Amino acid sequence: MAAVAAHALELSMEAAENGTGGDHSSPAGTPRPSKFAPAEFRSASVSVIVLGASGDLAKKKTLPALYGLFLRGLLPAEAAVVGYARSDLSRADFHDRISPNLEKVDGSSDDSLAVFLGQCHYVSGQYDSSEDFAALHDELIRLEDEAGASESGEAHRLFYLALPPKVFASVSATFEPVAMSQRGWNRVVVEKPFGRDLASSNELVAALAETFTEDQQFRIDHYLGKEAALNMVVFRFANLTFQPLWNRNYISTVEITFKEPFGTEGRGGYFDEIGIVRDVMQNHLLQLLALTAMERPISLSAEDVRDEKVKVLRCIEPLTLDDILIGQYVANEETGKPGYTDDDGVPDDSRCATFATAAFNIRNERWDGVPFIIRCGKALNERKANIRIQLRDTPGQLFGDAARNELVFRIQPSEAIYLKVMAKKPGLGDELVQTELDLTYHSRFPCETIPDAYERLLYDVLRGDRSHFVRADELEAAWRIFDDVLHKLDDGAVEPLPYVYGSRGPDAADDFVAARGYVRSGDYSWQASSQQSPSKL
Amino acid sequence: MAAVAAHALELSMEAAENGTGGDHSSPAGTPRPSKFAPAEFRSASVSVIVLGASGDLAKKKTLPALYGLFLRGLLPAEAAVVGYARSDLSRADFHDRISPNLEKVDGSSDDSLAVFLGQCHYVSGQYDSSEDFAALHDELIRLEDEAGASESGEAHRLFYLALPPKVFASVSATFEPVAMSQRGWNRVVVEKPFGRDLASSNELVAALAETFTEDQQFRIDHYLGKEAALNMVVFRFANLTFQPLWNRNYISTVEITFKEPFGTEGRGGYFDEIGIVRDVMQNHLLQLLALTAMERPISLSAEDVRDEKVKVLRCIEPLTLDDILIGQYVANEETGKPGYTDDDGVPDDSRCATFATAAFNIRNERWDGVPFIIRCGKALNERKANIRIQLRDTPGQLFGDAARNELVFRIQPSEAIYLKVMAKKPGLGDELVQTELDLTYHSRFPCETIPDAYERLLYDVLRGDRSHFVRADELEAAWRIFDDVLHKLDDGAVEPLPYVYGSRGPDAADDFVAARGYVRSGDYSWQASSQQSPSKL
Repeated sequence: MAAVAAHALELSMEAAENGTGGDHSSPAGTPRPSKFAPAEFRSASVSVIVLGASGDLAKKKTLPALYGLFLRGLLPAEAAVVGYARSDLSRADFHDRISPNLEKVDGSSDDSLAVFLGQCHYVSGQYDSSEDFAALHDELIRLEDEAGASESGEAHRLFYLALPPKVFASVSATFEPVAMSQRGWNRVVVEKPFGRDLASSNELVAALAETFTEDQQFRIDHYLGKEAALNMVVFRFANLTFQPLWNRNYISTVEITFKEPFGTEGRGGYFDEIGIVRDVMQNHLLQLLALTAMERPISLSAEDVRDEKVKVLRCIEPLTLDDILIGQYVANEETGKPGYTDDDGVPDDSRCATFATAAFNIRNERWDGVPFIIRCGKALNERKANIRIQLRDTPGQLFGDAARNELVFRIQPSEAIYLKVMAKKPGLGDELVQTELDLTYHSRFPCETIPDAYERLLYDVLRGDRSHFVRADELEAAWRIFDDVLHKLDDGAVEPLPYVYGSRGPDAADDFVAARGYVRSGDYSWQASSQQSPSKL
Repeated sequence: MAAVAAHALELSMEAAENGTGGDHSSPAGTPRPSKFAPAEFRSASVSVIVLGASGDLAKKKTLPALYGLFLRGLLPAEAAVVGYARSDLSRADFHDRISPNLEKVDGSSDDSLAVFLGQCHYVSGQYDSSEDFAALHDELIRLEDEAGASESGEAHRLFYLALPPKVFASVSATFEPVAMSQRGWNRVVVEKPFGRDLASSNELVAALAETFTEDQQFRIDHYLGKEAALNMVVFRFANLTFQPLWNRNYISTVEITFKEPFGTEGRGGYFDEIGIVRDVMQNHLLQLLALTAMERPISLSAEDVRDEKVKVLRCIEPLTLDDILIGQYVANEETGKPGYTDDDGVPDDSRCATFATAAFNIRNERWDGVPFIIRCGKALNERKANIRIQLRDTPGQLFGDAARNELVFRIQPSEAIYLKVMAKKPGLGDELVQTELDLTYHSRFPCETIPDAYERLLYDVLRGDRSHFVRADELEAAWRIFDDVLHKLDDGAVEPLPYVYGSRGPDAADDFVAARGYVRSGDYSWQASSQQSPSKL
């Protein structure tokens, strides 16, 4: 623990030097405030309450992320983690349940897990019972006082709703009156799906707004916590190199790709209600699009950044059926992998999309006419997520065989940013070769571990940084783009194109993209891509 | 030899498919003609005659480069290499003299050297004797006929003048009437120094023009054969990325640096007549400047490229003494390394520059006001040559701590091209880190060996590609820039600033550069630079 404690101390000292950080916006052009290690943590207790603590999300994401922060010395030393769920578990049972997912990281001492579990508590209760939440409150008071809140007078509470969205509003209305801290801030983290269309999303937002202010709510889209997404803003706005290029004069197409190598694998009954468009396109990938396309924010403050994201989303024309192509995977006879409709709970005549490609037009001065293409699918040939910005042909090209330049942000696996360029092939010939200016994270920063997106985002909640969370008006702007086409797809207006499990998706998807101007250069392969990243992303 | 022969055959076939290559210019926009392996080699004999064959240049550069071409299968199989010098050597003596510098390369068979020496002949003779050159001619006829020239009727001769420039004209006038091929082309390679000022250079050009046409002359500046120099044209014109950046709106300064870690080491008597400005700045480094700054050529043909180089050189304002800072190294008491004037043959009161920094202004639309800075010196802290293009500050910078972007062409050691950019530092903080998009040749192309510049250039002479040789009007334009300031330096108008052997040069040189707008970011070090390249450059 000595190393961890020293690290935490270092961060506190850094925070002290840099001021308090936190929620202030900074005027344009001045050095941004440090958001690191809020000073408030030094004099206050913090409790993280995980509602739905016995569920999958809590076990696989929330608690491991908290453990990760703990190991980095970024969870306040006196913080209590309190699981809440209906299951009647002892504290030891709870520890047994969560421990298998708490991974040791390099350099952490062997007793780290035991120390962390010493901070982990469990309260059993119903979600519709004011009495049970009152009992949770009493337990929190006890833990907070133990941690010194009675002296400092400050105790903050972070409620993580690892629950189905349909109960968000009712559960919140039940616990809010009885379980909130009266001695510090209360923050509430919620997870997608935020509704299934514009109307239901607006309803959910309105219902939660009756209980919490917008400032108290942190809507997680974990793609916003991924390193490459965080780097997009830095790359775009800290580097003059990209400034003249970043517009319709130089950029031909932007392609955002998300590929999974597995199908629904038994969860098809659940997936069939959702489809790939709601599952990843309308939220995660559209968020990446917004970061890629937004104008320069006035400052890096959360509201200024989110203002620009809303603005660019509002410039996007709503999708029509002409702008989207959908597919559904079928069995692969060679590998024996099943088709989507073979999955339990999926109707034989399901028209649910497991693959989709859509083209978006952003009607503003910067982008009008540049297709932003999102491709996503399950049961494809590889695991990959990236943002590919393809430049136009070089006018008056001197070299007959030169391919287009591309700037690629590789989100997973193996985080990287690379610029595909033409160079002279080394040697005595005069041939050109397509190569890249490369920044592969695990080669360039071998000593840095890239934190899991959840870890990053929970840390942001703790320090009150809302930049990487989805504001209510963003949600509305995002749903507006998809609302009409999703209703038509739900009504079965389009027969999905079949593609074989493990393939690149329907052939027509390549034609769809090519017809919108993307030029695929067939003989190029990124050298670094064969190396796998050790990170958890 | 089987592998080499097969390689040569492959190249011949490629040449056959691609047409003859060679001297034709291609219209703008059409695929450029292949310049590889001229078809003429298949039906003609070629002799390479090295005048001054017993000298240092021939031994260290010319013959090893020919051997390199031989090993790559790029020296015609029947080519004869004929050394000519005054020394009375047997053929075996000649072989013994040149063999130590002929290095084996990976994959060449053990008997390669013996086979190559089998193609190497020696003729002894005087440089002022028509009879001796006539004897050389007879020997060449014999070798050419042996190689089948009597059947094909074609025999080409490449004369490499590895001689002091002061005898170029007289030797040429002596051998030209009696030793030229009457059955094919004759090409003459000459080496710097081309005079010591504008007048003497013009004289030399005029004297050689009496004997040879401009087309027959190949003036070597071996920096034009270096991989990074060759790549400059490709990078600039094949990639749209750099097109909007390449001008005064985005570029703040261009710095071309050449550093040697050793002094004159006994050759000071010779160097004292030359100085660093003539030795590397006025020729090699100015050539790199021209490639960096020139406008897009109409095509890649030699004349079109050289036209643009001449144009940009003619836009450069002649240097004044205000534009240049000179230094001279002094002894390093810690390491015991001597000062420049300690070298034999150097006068104690020598004002010869062993270090110089000069700033050039290019008065055209693209560059006016952007300082092009050349820094070069002997007895410095490291061996390095690179071209560093620094962009301006990002206007409205959101990130207080962002350094300027730089595109760097690293010429030696370890050829690389990298773009210094700001990125988010990996991890949970929000700090920025200066990093780079990198193309390090020996990492990216581990299987390619980068040929020596002389090898490249001799190959170009053989195939008749003049792109990378200096045309007479280029020479004149280059001297014009330096003429006045060199005369003043020769007259001792400036006392050179002392700097210690092994240092970074005079401190005032950093101020000189900073005063012209270059911003040095102190805490950055290029990661890849610690790796040394296996190439010979």
